[in-house]
Amino acid sequence: MEIFERLESEVRGYCRGWPVVFDQARGSYLYSESGEAYLDFFAGAGSLNYGHNNPALKQKLLDYIAGDSVIHSLDAYSASKREFLRTFDEVVLSPRGLDYKVQFPGPAGNNAVEAALKLARKITGRETIISFTNGFHGMTLGALAVTGNSMKRGGAGVPLSHSATMPFDNYMDGQTPDFLWLRSLLEDSGSGLDRPAAVIVETVQGEGGINVASPAWLRGLAELCAEYEILLIVDDIQMGCGRTGPFFSFEDAGIQPDIITLSKSISGYGLPLALTLMKRELDLWDPGEHNGTFRGPNPSFVTGAAALDAYWRDDRLQRDTELKGKIVEKHLQAIAAAHPQLGATVRGRGLAWGLALESPEVAGAACAAAFERGLLLETSGPQDEVVKLLPPLTVTEDELDRGLTVLAEAVAAAAVQQP
Amino acid sequence: MEIFERLESEVRGYCRGWPVVFDQARGSYLYSESGEAYLDFFAGAGSLNYGHNNPALKQKLLDYIAGDSVIHSLDAYSASKREFLRTFDEVVLSPRGLDYKVQFPGPAGNNAVEAALKLARKITGRETIISFTNGFHGMTLGALAVTGNSMKRGGAGVPLSHSATMPFDNYMDGQTPDFLWLRSLLEDSGSGLDRPAAVIVETVQGEGGINVASPAWLRGLAELCAEYEILLIVDDIQMGCGRTGPFFSFEDAGIQPDIITLSKSISGYGLPLALTLMKRELDLWDPGEHNGTFRGPNPSFVTGAAALDAYWRDDRLQRDTELKGKIVEKHLQAIAAAHPQLGATVRGRGLAWGLALESPEVAGAACAAAFERGLLLETSGPQDEVVKLLPPLTVTEDELDRGLTVLAEAVAAAAVQQP
Amino acid sequence: MEIFERLESEVRGYCRGWPVVFDQARGSYLYSESGEAYLDFFAGAGSLNYGHNNPALKQKLLDYIAGDSVIHSLDAYSASKREFLRTFDEVVLSPRGLDYKVQFPGPAGNNAVEAALKLARKITGRETIISFTNGFHGMTLGALAVTGNSMKRGGAGVPLSHSATMPFDNYMDGQTPDFLWLRSLLEDSGSGLDRPAAVIVETVQGEGGINVASPAWLRGLAELCAEYEILLIVDDIQMGCGRTGPFFSFEDAGIQPDIITLSKSISGYGLPLALTLMKRELDLWDPGEHNGTFRGPNPSFVTGAAALDAYWRDDRLQRDTELKGKIVEKHLQAIAAAHPQLGATVRGRGLAWGLALESPEVAGAACAAAFERGLLLETSGPQDEVVKLLPPLTVTEDELDRGLTVLAEAVAAAAVQQP
Amino acid sequence: MEIFERLESEVRGYCRGWPVVFDQARGSYLYSESGEAYLDFFAGAGSLNYGHNNPALKQKLLDYIAGDSVIHSLDAYSASKREFLRTFDEVVLSPRGLDYKVQFPGPAGNNAVEAALKLARKITGRETIISFTNGFHGMTLGALAVTGNSMKRGGAGVPLSHSATMPFDNYMDGQTPDFLWLRSLLEDSGSGLDRPAAVIVETVQGEGGINVASPAWLRGLAELCAEYEILLIVDDIQMGCGRTGPFFSFEDAGIQPDIITLSKSISGYGLPLALTLMKRELDLWDPGEHNGTFRGPNPSFVTGAAALDAYWRDDRLQRDTELKGKIVEKHLQAIAAAHPQLGATVRGRGLAWGLALESPEVAGAACAAAFERGLLLETSGPQDEVVKLLPPLTVTEDELDRGLTVLAEAVAAAAVQQP
Repeated sequence: MEIFERLESEVRGYCRGWPVVFDQARGSYLYSESGEAYLDFFAGAGSLNYGHNNPALKQKLLDYIAGDSVIHSLDAYSASKREFLRTFDEVVLSPRGLDYKVQFPGPAGNNAVEAALKLARKITGRETIISFTNGFHGMTLGALAVTGNSMKRGGAGVPLSHSATMPFDNYMDGQTPDFLWLRSLLEDSGSGLDRPAAVIVETVQGEGGINVASPAWLRGLAELCAEYEILLIVDDIQMGCGRTGPFFSFEDAGIQPDIITLSKSISGYGLPLALTLMKRELDLWDPGEHNGTFRGPNPSFVTGAAALDAYWRDDRLQRDTELKGKIVEKHLQAIAAAHPQLGATVRGRGLAWGLALESPEVAGAACAAAFERGLLLETSGPQDEVVKLLPPLTVTEDELDRGLTVLAEAVAAAAVQQP
Repeated sequence: MEIFERLESEVRGYCRGWPVVFDQARGSYLYSESGEAYLDFFAGAGSLNYGHNNPALKQKLLDYIAGDSVIHSLDAYSASKREFLRTFDEVVLSPRGLDYKVQFPGPAGNNAVEAALKLARKITGRETIISFTNGFHGMTLGALAVTGNSMKRGGAGVPLSHSATMPFDNYMDGQTPDFLWLRSLLEDSGSGLDRPAAVIVETVQGEGGINVASPAWLRGLAELCAEYEILLIVDDIQMGCGRTGPFFSFEDAGIQPDIITLSKSISGYGLPLALTLMKRELDLWDPGEHNGTFRGPNPSFVTGAAALDAYWRDDRLQRDTELKGKIVEKHLQAIAAAHPQLGATVRGRGLAWGLALESPEVAGAACAAAFERGLLLETSGPQDEVVKLLPPLTVTEDELDRGLTVLAEAVAAAAVQQP
Repeated sequence: MEIFERLESEVRGYCRGWPVVFDQARGSYLYSESGEAYLDFFAGAGSLNYGHNNPALKQKLLDYIAGDSVIHSLDAYSASKREFLRTFDEVVLSPRGLDYKVQFPGPAGNNAVEAALKLARKITGRETIISFTNGFHGMTLGALAVTGNSMKRGGAGVPLSHSATMPFDNYMDGQTPDFLWLRSLLEDSGSGLDRPAAVIVETVQGEGGINVASPAWLRGLAELCAEYEILLIVDDIQMGCGRTGPFFSFEDAGIQPDIITLSKSISGYGLPLALTLMKRELDLWDPGEHNGTFRGPNPSFVTGAAALDAYWRDDRLQRDTELKGKIVEKHLQAIAAAHPQLGATVRGRGLAWGLALESPEVAGAACAAAFERGLLLETSGPQDEVVKLLPPLTVTEDELDRGLTVLAEAVAAAAVQQP
Repeated sequence: MEIFERLESEVRGYCRGWPVVFDQARGSYLYSESGEAYLDFFAGAGSLNYGHNNPALKQKLLDYIAGDSVIHSLDAYSASKREFLRTFDEVVLSPRGLDYKVQFPGPAGNNAVEAALKLARKITGRETIISFTNGFHGMTLGALAVTGNSMKRGGAGVPLSHSATMPFDNYMDGQTPDFLWLRSLLEDSGSGLDRPAAVIVETVQGEGGINVASPAWLRGLAELCAEYEILLIVDDIQMGCGRTGPFFSFEDAGIQPDIITLSKSISGYGLPLALTLMKRELDLWDPGEHNGTFRGPNPSFVTGAAALDAYWRDDRLQRDTELKGKIVEKHLQAIAAAHPQLGATVRGRGLAWGLALESPEVAGAACAAAFERGLLLETSGPQDEVVKLLPPLTVTEDELDRGLTVLAEAVAAAAVQQP
């Protein structure tokens, strides 16, 4: 590992908690060079909803490459892009009655967010974007300005502006009515909040510590936005593609955002791809007004279409995800109950779950103990106090049981270790 | 093509000039669905320096995927990342006596730029970044603030700040001494220019219209930066990886930038990958201070290492590029001479060339006429008045001749058409 | 009046509600050219706490000018400045045990605010200033960024940044605990609120509609600031100099702000003067770091010292103000009770009072009807829905009765007029 | 002086170079408490063009105050404001064929600048303001962003934005054609300069070191602005009111700015007053969009009208100023010639003159030596290397001779002292 330490910047992160060199990967498992298997309950931070090297996608990718199909085509037309669009329309948009246009804003989630913010500002002619406490939207300057984490924000090196933070669902004491503050600000021409262009929200805040917005809160937000002609952007980069059950995480709430961002699992295979969807009438871009080199990553289109094809033509994956979610919840509740002194709470939806501990140290120790036992997990939340579970949606019930059993042991070990 | 028009956002661009559906690609050629071959003198805007589906890389990529090697690993350690780092060190850094650390800031060039700007601001505690007229650095908010193009800037929807524009080499009348203005501003505590954190510069401005900085100008800039303790960032995203001859485009000038950005051809195969290099002592990042999902795109590491291995262990590619550049220059001079009424000028270095015409209409018509004749080209420059040539470095001399002959015909046709 | 309409900018305001030409003024009365007397319950928006042309000040001013004493002395030392400082120390600071240094930041309140914000940012090295809903601090760009009114903010022509708005006391439903939101943001490193340099607050918001902060709320704010090492700036420009009873409006709350701004009535005679006070240890200015031409307006020092001398060597003015405040309150309550259909509420402290009506139209009509009856009043509040009373502190009880009787008639007339 | 040191903020400046307490003033002289006379060649930084306590103004002011005329009237109509407007129109605007409207933006120059910038941004809908190297426009945040001095800018505590600095006349090597750089930026849509709302310029930069723009340069600037539909703001706060000869300093150049700021000597008596003038068709303010407490300082209107009346009904003052300017120039040239080792250059116009020395230390020592000899002077320029002369326009030739003789001695003493 010497070469990493010598050559790779100190900014590297995950490798510090998982100090092995990964080599192979299949389904729910990653394998280190020395052959040890790691059950992956992190799934590329939600980029591997269909597991590693999913066979249904792999062969298509191999055939595509082997056949000298076009790999890089900027944003020219390609057969694989057409196939992706056609499948996305047929499998995702049409069945849900959604009339959106699709922008390929660049390969990463932050490109999708930056494009969404630019478009919202262009449409409305306003600057301010409302974001929420503990929201996470990316590391580029525009996305960072709507991200809550102070360490990441500090990295900007310039003041972050044109944004205002509002309380996420259930942020304060549980007594304050939803949107009391935001509505007051919007109603009051003397409030000091300049009229916003848009609101950007995650339905479940992953990096923020698995904070779950209720459907009622999301509906209230959508209504408030409509009332004040503010655009609603749902950042579904981590929670979309079935992570919470349905394809889009906002489906349960019955809302239709004005703009949606997708990335992470949209390519299905862990390859870079990002989408910005906007309601048809909001597609006010001029040609070339936002561009970039990697907007036509054809291999990602190929595996992306294959994933939609394999998993979203019926509701099996959604139902499985919801069932597996119940299993996770039950186990986590049991873990929390077993260690009352840790003050643990359990929260989540679909297969995005958090075990929030009072002590960040215990959370960290639990993840470290899990790693030693062959289970990959990460902390999240403002203090890194939440053990976060994002297993592949294709995880088997056996794997789930095994992982949760290991987690129980790891929490027990951490609880002892850190009094 | 109906599905693109119905579903893809109006922001799409290149497809408008090349209204065919690409399907296959090999070497210097792209093929449409209907089987027509297009000689590619655009090379993915410089992302395909080794041509399409280069066989030396392709088999390694296929083997990697077929063998269930890890595809997505965030920024954990992987065997393919180690191999990439090792090769990059052995083939690129060490032989040139460069002691840089490597950051993987995300999959796209804009991520490399955003990381570079953040780091420069962190290191210096200052905000202002100097950029140059007609510079291009990307579409995310931080990168856009140092990009010149007014249409792209307008897309931001917020005022772009913390940057100041300075004249690129030979920008004005050819009489004004280099850096007269910038040096005056830096020397004068009443100038109104806040002391900059960094300068960001391309050695040849690709999007800006193939504007070539002389080695002397680059050295002068480096000296000025050193004198005033301003960091020098060379954005080598488009001009690095051999586009101008040597691996880094600044080698001829004999300078060592503080920070370097690379992307486009660094993966060698058109796959997303980006690097931010910083002098060892400038690696002041905190762990995780800049993060992102697609910082470990292992397939890109595999092809990236293979490309370095195949092309950069000796100086053949560099010499070939320089030789082919002479051929391009000669042809372009001949084209310019053949149409004195077009007021054409020729500029370039290595295999990055521009035929600057007085009329943007003629430039556009020439590219359209070239497309009709099976040659892919694009315009660049503030008015889209420059026909830009970025053939693969692996283009054969025959292909080069063929393409330049087609270009001559296309310019002739455009000249007639647009009086 | 033709010359005003022809030559004075459309930005002019008060003259629209009071379309006469004022000529003379004495005590609580203004007189128009045509000799009509107007009882002045606006007092120069709080700049004339001691009435118009107060004889105790007037003679000193006349003697000063007549004797060829220095009028303009930049920020050089002058005898009148020394006398002002000595008196301010003796009469205001020392008796209250306050150890502040005095900055003369320029002639107007906005200069005092701009200097306060600059100093707070310098001291802390942070950028964000917390301000409150419906706060008003001035029209220059720094002050405007912490002002709530959207029409005024819109006048900036650039996005206003480096500030965040928080709920003033009793802003929402009366149920939400004080500082629940602000404390949550400060405690939570993921909240998205960058750590603030300072809080700027008015104890009673005059322009905002006579919103009164309770002593408990102010103490809570001071404690929160101390806990998080945020500077507390009290903008006492309108509510200081005895407007609420004590010299400083925050005395009742028992707090000591880090920085205090004073202007309006500090010269006593309606002449321009402004002060920024900072705790001794916070005087981290470099010489000349903030400058300006009119920082030594000696006539203002003369009348300012005279006013302190005449009114603040004992507590009579304070007690009178409090007593007169009770009279005002009683009358206003009676007016409110007489017109239940107007939904009027009464609020205020000292001699700053508001009659908040449901309808801005009725509020405007009441002020117009008062003007017709010889009483000067203005509306305030985000919708201009609050009739605002700021009589001179030297108003007699007879004048007070007369004015409040006229107001009662005016409200009655407005209530009939506007159903 | 102990009370100043104990109570006044460290930010105080001029008092440090002139450590006496001023008490009385008449004509060109200030007198200290101990009775020493100081010949004032600084004139309140240009606020006392008609000398101290000018008798033609003084009696009117005394009568006004003695007669209980209204002192403070916000922006209501007052007889004194009408008289001021009528006189300003009759004496200044009409004879010069200028059709401007008058805004009273607050008592200080920075208010005039802030209002000008806000209005320019409102009119154009753009944000960027072009300012010039070594320009000085004030200490409030908007004005500071267009001010060059780095120490003052640093005091902002936030990055200053929405502005861009350009070379003032003759800034660089004297070879570069005027506006080569600015015109290039405006012409080139890829330049990175966002289209400006306005240009703000001083015709002679006072604080910047008495840098004189030629009439041809000013005309060129006006033409460039007209060509690109950019508003031209002339900041005539220091150089207006006859300082350079004519009432407005731009008259010689034959231009008509879109917006003009005036302050300093406009009240004639050293009292606070400021004006923003805008071409009639540019008066797009909404009522009350910019407001403030001290916009109706009636004593300033009284002396202001009296000064216009006394000095501007014929061209005597202008001719005198120009003649006296020649005297100053001749003396300064002689001083420069007498000390070739100081590398002194002489620059100025009207009665604004600078003796620019190579060494800031010598400049400071010369001012100190002058003070010891009873002459008040200040340095200016980015390094404080320029001895700046702004005597009252009403200075007699004898006083002028006396002062310049003292200056010659002081420079000689400084030259010896500081080798």
